[in-house]
Amino acid sequence: MRASQFLIATIKETPADAEVISHQLMLRAGMIRKLATGLYTWLPMGLRVLRKVEAIIREEMNNSGAMEVLMPVAQPAELWQESGRWEQYGAELLRFNDRHGRDFCLGPTHEEVITDLIRNEIKSYKQLPATFYQVQTKFRDEIRPRFGVMRSREFIMKDAYSFHNGQESLQATYDVMHAAYSRIFTRLGLDFRPVIADTGSIGGSGSHEFHVLASSGEDDIAFSDTSDYAANVEMAEAVSPAGERPASSQTLEKVATPNTHTIDDVSALLKLNAEQVLKTLIIYGEEDENGKQDLIALVLRGDHQLNEIKAEKIAGVASPLTFASEEDIVAVLGCKPGSIGPADLSIRVIADRSAAHCADFACGANEDGFHLTGGNWDRDAKFTETADIRNVVEGDPSPDGQGSLLIKRGIEVGHIFQLGTKYSEALKASVLNENGKDQVMTMGCYGIGVTRVVASAIEQNNDAKGILWPASIAPFEVAIVPLNMQKSERVREQAENLYNTLRGLGYDVLLDDRNERPGVKFADMELIGIPHRIVIGDRGLDNGMLEYKNRRASDNEDIAIDDIVDFIQQQLPR
Amino acid sequence: MRASQFLIATIKETPADAEVISHQLMLRAGMIRKLATGLYTWLPMGLRVLRKVEAIIREEMNNSGAMEVLMPVAQPAELWQESGRWEQYGAELLRFNDRHGRDFCLGPTHEEVITDLIRNEIKSYKQLPATFYQVQTKFRDEIRPRFGVMRSREFIMKDAYSFHNGQESLQATYDVMHAAYSRIFTRLGLDFRPVIADTGSIGGSGSHEFHVLASSGEDDIAFSDTSDYAANVEMAEAVSPAGERPASSQTLEKVATPNTHTIDDVSALLKLNAEQVLKTLIIYGEEDENGKQDLIALVLRGDHQLNEIKAEKIAGVASPLTFASEEDIVAVLGCKPGSIGPADLSIRVIADRSAAHCADFACGANEDGFHLTGGNWDRDAKFTETADIRNVVEGDPSPDGQGSLLIKRGIEVGHIFQLGTKYSEALKASVLNENGKDQVMTMGCYGIGVTRVVASAIEQNNDAKGILWPASIAPFEVAIVPLNMQKSERVREQAENLYNTLRGLGYDVLLDDRNERPGVKFADMELIGIPHRIVIGDRGLDNGMLEYKNRRASDNEDIAIDDIVDFIQQQLPR
Repeated sequence: MRASQFLIATIKETPADAEVISHQLMLRAGMIRKLATGLYTWLPMGLRVLRKVEAIIREEMNNSGAMEVLMPVAQPAELWQESGRWEQYGAELLRFNDRHGRDFCLGPTHEEVITDLIRNEIKSYKQLPATFYQVQTKFRDEIRPRFGVMRSREFIMKDAYSFHNGQESLQATYDVMHAAYSRIFTRLGLDFRPVIADTGSIGGSGSHEFHVLASSGEDDIAFSDTSDYAANVEMAEAVSPAGERPASSQTLEKVATPNTHTIDDVSALLKLNAEQVLKTLIIYGEEDENGKQDLIALVLRGDHQLNEIKAEKIAGVASPLTFASEEDIVAVLGCKPGSIGPADLSIRVIADRSAAHCADFACGANEDGFHLTGGNWDRDAKFTETADIRNVVEGDPSPDGQGSLLIKRGIEVGHIFQLGTKYSEALKASVLNENGKDQVMTMGCYGIGVTRVVASAIEQNNDAKGILWPASIAPFEVAIVPLNMQKSERVREQAENLYNTLRGLGYDVLLDDRNERPGVKFADMELIGIPHRIVIGDRGLDNGMLEYKNRRASDNEDIAIDDIVDFIQQQLPR
Repeated sequence: MRASQFLIATIKETPADAEVISHQLMLRAGMIRKLATGLYTWLPMGLRVLRKVEAIIREEMNNSGAMEVLMPVAQPAELWQESGRWEQYGAELLRFNDRHGRDFCLGPTHEEVITDLIRNEIKSYKQLPATFYQVQTKFRDEIRPRFGVMRSREFIMKDAYSFHNGQESLQATYDVMHAAYSRIFTRLGLDFRPVIADTGSIGGSGSHEFHVLASSGEDDIAFSDTSDYAANVEMAEAVSPAGERPASSQTLEKVATPNTHTIDDVSALLKLNAEQVLKTLIIYGEEDENGKQDLIALVLRGDHQLNEIKAEKIAGVASPLTFASEEDIVAVLGCKPGSIGPADLSIRVIADRSAAHCADFACGANEDGFHLTGGNWDRDAKFTETADIRNVVEGDPSPDGQGSLLIKRGIEVGHIFQLGTKYSEALKASVLNENGKDQVMTMGCYGIGVTRVVASAIEQNNDAKGILWPASIAPFEVAIVPLNMQKSERVREQAENLYNTLRGLGYDVLLDDRNERPGVKFADMELIGIPHRIVIGDRGLDNGMLEYKNRRASDNEDIAIDDIVDFIQQQLPR
């Protein structure tokens, strides 16, 4: 492509309303423009990236046996009423009326439409399993769209749906999709983790999110420094500390701790690390037949955070997890929440695995204004049971036994999910099984936020000068920057020759033939993030040399004219 | 692709609610399914065709220098208010409110959005000309969607917009687009005509429609049997008959023609062909300063039809063209409309060019119940002027002087249009020109109904067994149909070998490995319309032969196993 015949819409200043780096750089590099809140036009430069992302996704989906379809953006309300989501879905579902007053919505997702299609088209277990996908525009009327195409209202998603004759088949396709997603994000050149995700009521290992690691991510991801284990921080198991609990070496003492309200206050006063101080949180148990709720104590190390999702799953704990009121605590336990400890507590005590491993700990004395030090389990305090009720922290052992955990922020770009029969039951999507009986199909769904992938790639790959595209999705692979091309015939000739040669070899080349100063061209090519840049100038040509720069390198290299094509082929093997 | 791993969703019966053949065959061949009125899902088989159409369009648009962008489906009302179309556009514009109550629409077209984009991005005449296109989902809330994807509510369009520093540049790009469209429809394998279209108030040759010729089309297209001249019947010029008007050979006579009300009645009674009988239509002229409207007579041959668009353009004719009331006719001319003729008329008489060329004609006698025969111009009747005021008919000379006209029905699949400054003026889209002055950009727009192209290809290419795809857009190019593959090892081996070989050569091959009877497979492959079919069976293999059938041929051919690959390469050269 010749830059003179292409819309290079770069901007020097950082747009004021762009908060995150990817949004800033996509505007500055001329990739997107805002049409209205949460609505973006993809300019030619950005669309080249988007199409490359789509192509990689399509290839891997096709290779995994999924069949591409295209479902309408507009969906009739009737199907959503059948699934129950017409009522359940909030204001993010953009509802509208057609000219005849009939109810429709703009699809934020297509479970209903595909299930309706398949219940009509697939009648026998012999036609299963079958996986369908599309790359289609979606609409979610976010209350506060932001971060450019990272959280826009209209966006492009690859959504896939699989249909099965039972769980075993679903699991097999789920594994195929997991592998396909891993190949996709690997080919996209992204540092990502498939992360065990919460499946809500379904349970099991039926859901993974694929996260691109980037400091601007909205989710905390815990992952092993050794293995491929990764999970949302909320989901990662905090395993029991290794070895036996240390023996006690101190005696129990009661100390006055007036005006201490936090673990930090207490540990500062007692000159202890927070990990030596236990905190005790009081929550409600489930209602009994009389509507009465017992109190339950949760004990954690002072440096650990309660994981409410984990705690809520423990039998007998009220759901949603609810902290006891000060009034109830004082009434039952005789002191305020800040002085509660596990010593001689009359209620159920659930100790976190790490808290249960502590010796010589400090804790509340169950008397306002006092704490105990030198506390030891069994001797001074008792727990009813131990459980994993905390968030993991960096350095925790990886739950798979390999290495220890790191925690980084992640951007969710993909999600695979074992739906089970939620939609197929609601829409009565069944097949005749081996025994000639009607059997509701089991379903999986698999999404990738295609437009969001582009933004997340930038979040992970940028520097002060602009974007650092992974080679596979760069808008152009090579930039040829001739200097003084308008006047120097030999520069023009070399530039045109090289342009034609590299294009002939199948490379995406941008020839910056604009009549601009070298500095402007260099800055634009770096901002846009083209991985390989070749500068052609009279001074170099005097010595038979061209100047090459890798976008990620700090220095230029001189390459002989005769060697440049070989050199590029080494950089970008086909 | 293996048929066993692909959704072959063929239907034997013709769906009751499908009126046209393309709709019937797209349903029967498993290309599309209806989601709701005017909303269709593209199944895997149909989507393969759609993607091939899109790919050809993209290639030619890119080759013509257009840049691809992607604009949102949802558009804010503000831009449509700026252009004035928010009020002008009828109920086809699907309007909706977002969760904050703001007005939006689903884009039926993107003139406003692209003009808004370009007024911000392009500031200098040096950046012009520039052409942008997209392949995007559109929505038109048709009151009566029908014919499947031929007239659906949600559809895919390729729309392009060009921006210019004046008319000369617009004309140049318009010509480039005309050529690109011709290449596109040629590559799609369609019998089409670029047709001169009405430009409304703009005038000139600034608009062409591209029509696929098919008997189910909604428009009548007149085109030369010799040259590439083509126009909407309404637009085609009816040129003057060649040579001098024949000399008179009859004398004028007045004959009683009681109870004749039509040209057919009169010609039957007088035993004349309709072309020998002139019909005279009385319309109103423009109002004068007193609000008075004179009557004007339009004279045509009895076998010709008035073209109201042409007549309305004549100076002095009231617009819209309005026929005079019987009351006014009787008051001014003294007889009823059925007996009017050009002899001794006291009003302005505009004779159609062909009517003006008649000799020895019959016409009304301007006396109720009487006609004249043997009439001749000058001697018996006078016209004020001649003009082209009729529709062309088959056999008329082509207006470009080459050949004569044929008339066929056409389906509009593309439209190119010189917009001028309609949108750029309304949205104040200007650049600095050579003289440093603000200059409103001139615009062109260029559309192709991508989904409609698929349907129109079927309208033009089908037979009793199903679809006859042009090779370039067939969902698969070659079908391999093994017989008894489940039992015959050598059939399976030959089929797999051939499948792998042809795929390796880059062909789109469907291996029908389903466990179905041969008759079912043959019928499906013909219904789906795969151009080349190879049958592999034990009987043929005994003689080292395979059975080849071209979808458009009536007979099979036996081809030696060793020759089949060469044979296919001859049929489908790469």
